[in-house]
Amino acid sequence: MINIVGIGGSLRKNSYNRYLMLEAAKLMPDGSKLKILDISGLPFYNQDIENNYPENVKNFKNEIKNSDGILFVTPEYNYSVPGYLKNAIDLASRPYGDNSFNGKPAAIMSASIGMLGGSRAQYHLRQSFVFLNIIPINTPEVFVTMASQKFDENGNLRDEDAKKFMRQLLENLVNTARKLKND
Amino acid sequence: MINIVGIGGSLRKNSYNRYLMLEAAKLMPDGSKLKILDISGLPFYNQDIENNYPENVKNFKNEIKNSDGILFVTPEYNYSVPGYLKNAIDLASRPYGDNSFNGKPAAIMSASIGMLGGSRAQYHLRQSFVFLNIIPINTPEVFVTMASQKFDENGNLRDEDAKKFMRQLLENLVNTARKLKND
Amino acid sequence: MINIVGIGGSLRKNSYNRYLMLEAAKLMPDGSKLKILDISGLPFYNQDIENNYPENVKNFKNEIKNSDGILFVTPEYNYSVPGYLKNAIDLASRPYGDNSFNGKPAAIMSASIGMLGGSRAQYHLRQSFVFLNIIPINTPEVFVTMASQKFDENGNLRDEDAKKFMRQLLENLVNTARKLKND
Amino acid sequence: MINIVGIGGSLRKNSYNRYLMLEAAKLMPDGSKLKILDISGLPFYNQDIENNYPENVKNFKNEIKNSDGILFVTPEYNYSVPGYLKNAIDLASRPYGDNSFNGKPAAIMSASIGMLGGSRAQYHLRQSFVFLNIIPINTPEVFVTMASQKFDENGNLRDEDAKKFMRQLLENLVNTARKLKND
Repeated sequence: MINIVGIGGSLRKNSYNRYLMLEAAKLMPDGSKLKILDISGLPFYNQDIENNYPENVKNFKNEIKNSDGILFVTPEYNYSVPGYLKNAIDLASRPYGDNSFNGKPAAIMSASIGMLGGSRAQYHLRQSFVFLNIIPINTPEVFVTMASQKFDENGNLRDEDAKKFMRQLLENLVNTARKLKND
Repeated sequence: MINIVGIGGSLRKNSYNRYLMLEAAKLMPDGSKLKILDISGLPFYNQDIENNYPENVKNFKNEIKNSDGILFVTPEYNYSVPGYLKNAIDLASRPYGDNSFNGKPAAIMSASIGMLGGSRAQYHLRQSFVFLNIIPINTPEVFVTMASQKFDENGNLRDEDAKKFMRQLLENLVNTARKLKND
Repeated sequence: MINIVGIGGSLRKNSYNRYLMLEAAKLMPDGSKLKILDISGLPFYNQDIENNYPENVKNFKNEIKNSDGILFVTPEYNYSVPGYLKNAIDLASRPYGDNSFNGKPAAIMSASIGMLGGSRAQYHLRQSFVFLNIIPINTPEVFVTMASQKFDENGNLRDEDAKKFMRQLLENLVNTARKLKND
Repeated sequence: MINIVGIGGSLRKNSYNRYLMLEAAKLMPDGSKLKILDISGLPFYNQDIENNYPENVKNFKNEIKNSDGILFVTPEYNYSVPGYLKNAIDLASRPYGDNSFNGKPAAIMSASIGMLGGSRAQYHLRQSFVFLNIIPINTPEVFVTMASQKFDENGNLRDEDAKKFMRQLLENLVNTARKLKND
């Protein structure tokens, strides 16, 4: 069993990126599962707290460390990664056993109501991967554009093309995770 | 009098970026002053709260809106802008009178203990400026590298070259702010 | 009269970015004009030739230096600026009177057959602007997506929304150029 | 035997990035070798020529396609990849058997006379890797800063720390190439 953790979505109750994360959980390949991590109660990172993290940060870091790979689902705020998501990454990158992401594979998805689909946030996130020593999954890139037309009122994705790309990306992520685990 | 607000520094008590912000305040050109904004108590932004901001967010946004320009001082976390600083920007970019940064000039400084001096965070921040419609000051770029050798034990900057560049950048910021104000 | 030079388009005979540049020439505000520069015969830049440029490089640099601003029209190759366009910029940035772009305002447009419209090339180009000391025009960003549906068989743009954004961007460029000229 | 091809260096006769590429050839791990490709005579890419490439472009693409991995050595021009190097990449990414880089691992090195060591060029190059489906080697990043003090008059690198990082990066590249080859 390949265990992937999901980080991101949105702090909003009803957001397209939250729906996208839930959709991804349904599309995981056989022999794998997605556990969505709750980042809503995490404190702001600063170096003064990194040697004395509260329990929820420790649990968050343990979940990542014990996983075989990560799925990031990121909205785009101001042409970059949202502050709350970057903050969760900052927490996970520093002490209590150091960088929890080290050597793990990761894929990225995003949804947006506009035409660029969160791409600018995705490339900034990929630059962070270099320092975090995350193995990036290159393709296919999943940008769900014009999201308001693609999710129904219950938050279900109604775009078969998008689902096909999501399945392919998740398969590539799980395959890479399996190879790294067996190395 | 040209009023610049300072955003960033660090949430840490003793950080080189906090010292850098304090140093900038001392180096402001005649006829201008720097007011350093406190971002330590701000909530995480999400769209559900943007029409019902608490007082400290409203005050933060008012300070920016009433200013003539912004000085960002940014550490670099994971090759990008720290989550807590990006979150403050996200809050300021959305309702209670909308994008508080609109049309204002901004300069960036950073300090780091390494050799790249926060440059990767600065370029990500500049990409956010495009959406925020912030007028970027191009030169000189201020990267205080190997910061542990450049600040004394009281947090005073002991590098005359760095101070010269800081003075020049602040002058360029204030001159641009003055022109825009008089337009 | 405000004189803008156009750099980019495409080396291809029939390309959407060439058409976009020609369209921009038609949409220039009153009191301004666009002169499209030919970059097709320029040599590859390297430092060994920078003190002995051929005539066409000198002319190219003179045109930029004598202009009041620049319009870049860029295709996107491999998620960045095309090599031939970056090479033209590299030539213009170095000797024969040094950086020809210094202090000039510039706007960017791009067309693509896909959905992201060249945005990744535009943000890379903006990073070069920092070093080149080009004053970037922030808004509106012009990305002509799905270009094959938007130009007719004679290369005329048939998208009134795109034209409206182009007009607005050109107006902002010309207004900024006029202010800088009168400073 | 793992065959790596070297792309980049500089078109200049005596450049630190050319020296860096030659140094890398000497530091290759046992069981691997570096073949430096000549990109000095390549034409400018444009789509009109992509189905009718001259022999030197075909040979260049064959060398990449037949290799087990790539070492890019890139100077930094105007905070990005030099035009001539980006152009070589653009040529290799398009027809005559399509994207020659597809699925191959790649590492990056750079030298500069300044303090940032070409880092801005490296991150732009990494963004191109996503589209090119190149598997990036994350660590260690090799930035040879203040190059004029680190190479002797014969172009030999006199910095043991830099060599140690280069050896480690080349080892990581070769190990990844070997795993992918045996998959």
